Amino acid sequence: MGKRKLETCFSPALFEPEGHNNSIVVIIDILRASSAIVTAFANGAVAIIPVATVEEAKGYKSKGYLVAAERDGYVLYFADFGNSPFNFTREKVEGKTIAYSTTNGTGIINLSSSAYSTVIGSFLNIGALTAWLINQERDVLLFCAGWKNRFNLEDTVCAGAIAELLMASSLYSTICDSTVAAMDLWSIARHNLRLYIEKAAQNTRLRDKNLDDCIDFCLTLNFTGKIPVMKDGILVENIP
Amino acid sequence: MGKRKLETCFSPALFEPEGHNNSIVVIIDILRASSAIVTAFANGAVAIIPVATVEEAKGYKSKGYLVAAERDGYVLYFADFGNSPFNFTREKVEGKTIAYSTTNGTGIINLSSSAYSTVIGSFLNIGALTAWLINQERDVLLFCAGWKNRFNLEDTVCAGAIAELLMASSLYSTICDSTVAAMDLWSIARHNLRLYIEKAAQNTRLRDKNLDDCIDFCLTLNFTGKIPVMKDGILVENIP
Repeated sequence: MGKRKLETCFSPALFEPEGHNNSIVVIIDILRASSAIVTAFANGAVAIIPVATVEEAKGYKSKGYLVAAERDGYVLYFADFGNSPFNFTREKVEGKTIAYSTTNGTGIINLSSSAYSTVIGSFLNIGALTAWLINQERDVLLFCAGWKNRFNLEDTVCAGAIAELLMASSLYSTICDSTVAAMDLWSIARHNLRLYIEKAAQNTRLRDKNLDDCIDFCLTLNFTGKIPVMKDGILVENIP
Repeated sequence: MGKRKLETCFSPALFEPEGHNNSIVVIIDILRASSAIVTAFANGAVAIIPVATVEEAKGYKSKGYLVAAERDGYVLYFADFGNSPFNFTREKVEGKTIAYSTTNGTGIINLSSSAYSTVIGSFLNIGALTAWLINQERDVLLFCAGWKNRFNLEDTVCAGAIAELLMASSLYSTICDSTVAAMDLWSIARHNLRLYIEKAAQNTRLRDKNLDDCIDFCLTLNFTGKIPVMKDGILVENIP
């Protein structure tokens, strides 16, 4: 058997759905959606329902669901909380199903629905995620959420960190320039990840809104072993 | 006056035309269109007419123009030559107007037509280009052609090299993650540019078609002082 294919996509605007029917897609949106989702499962959430529109999110609220919803970093008025991983405490989420709508994250989950499988990646679950991927006989696409269709640094260096761990297994090959670039940027960022992320536009955006308190946490490696996976349109805990 | 804005776009699929009416757009497609165009002017070409379709290119041929036209690296049957900078010799191009159609390059020129000005960038003219840009009071967008809408390494590191020279003037600021990434990748690539470009998918594509003979040349810094610029839909030599 040949090596598995490893690819990276830097933005929803660059996503090519046709090539990935047999791939596992890893969605990376570390500041803050994918870190928040991973944290929710770490704290005992049962399921997360990705919701695209504000109206839909409102609908879930009226049906009694816990609702996490933000636009451009601000919590929507009817929601229980927003997009910071610090909101998804055990006290709030344990045993719960959460309807979750964000600026970026939920749209991208729908984009990748034709893939063999879709999982959520972040620094918080990077060790468990890569170990699990290595145990699957599948091509992998690292799908960076970016910001409003733009390339972003934080998701790219996380993709690079994941790619490096996968490539180290010798089970994958890549002829994807985006993967090479992500690994090279990670090779720079890894020496002081927090300082590197200072250069990211999202760092400035979050700081300007006083929402940057969670960045250190989002850059923590291996906070949890949980790997959220899409099943029938809902994120649940992956059972390896 | 505030600093000028410096931005980088990694692919035509990521281009946002609305923000650049007052910017100078630098088109970067170093393997091989932008290197070939710059070489043509270095060797005395008078003008280059960017042509989008094969039919249009054929039309120019029947009108007696010199035609450079390729698709995926292969010279079209009716064309005088293809896309290698080595085709644009002084013997062939001096004093001539050339109709030029490529897989990537001409489409991107049309995309940026709403910009204040569009010029052609490459390693071959990087010194003259950046000196000229610094003398203009304009924002700059470094527009990487990529490959079939994908991110590519070779245009990105060239953008990074240009960005580094512009940023060194202290006249520009950037809050663009793509520019930061391009400069960081250039900081790695610069130590052995030819070896770095070995990692690029386009290096493999050109080698597989025996078209890689020009890569060393395309990575040569400051081969010429010519800066091709769009005037009324045609590329001509910039008169500073």
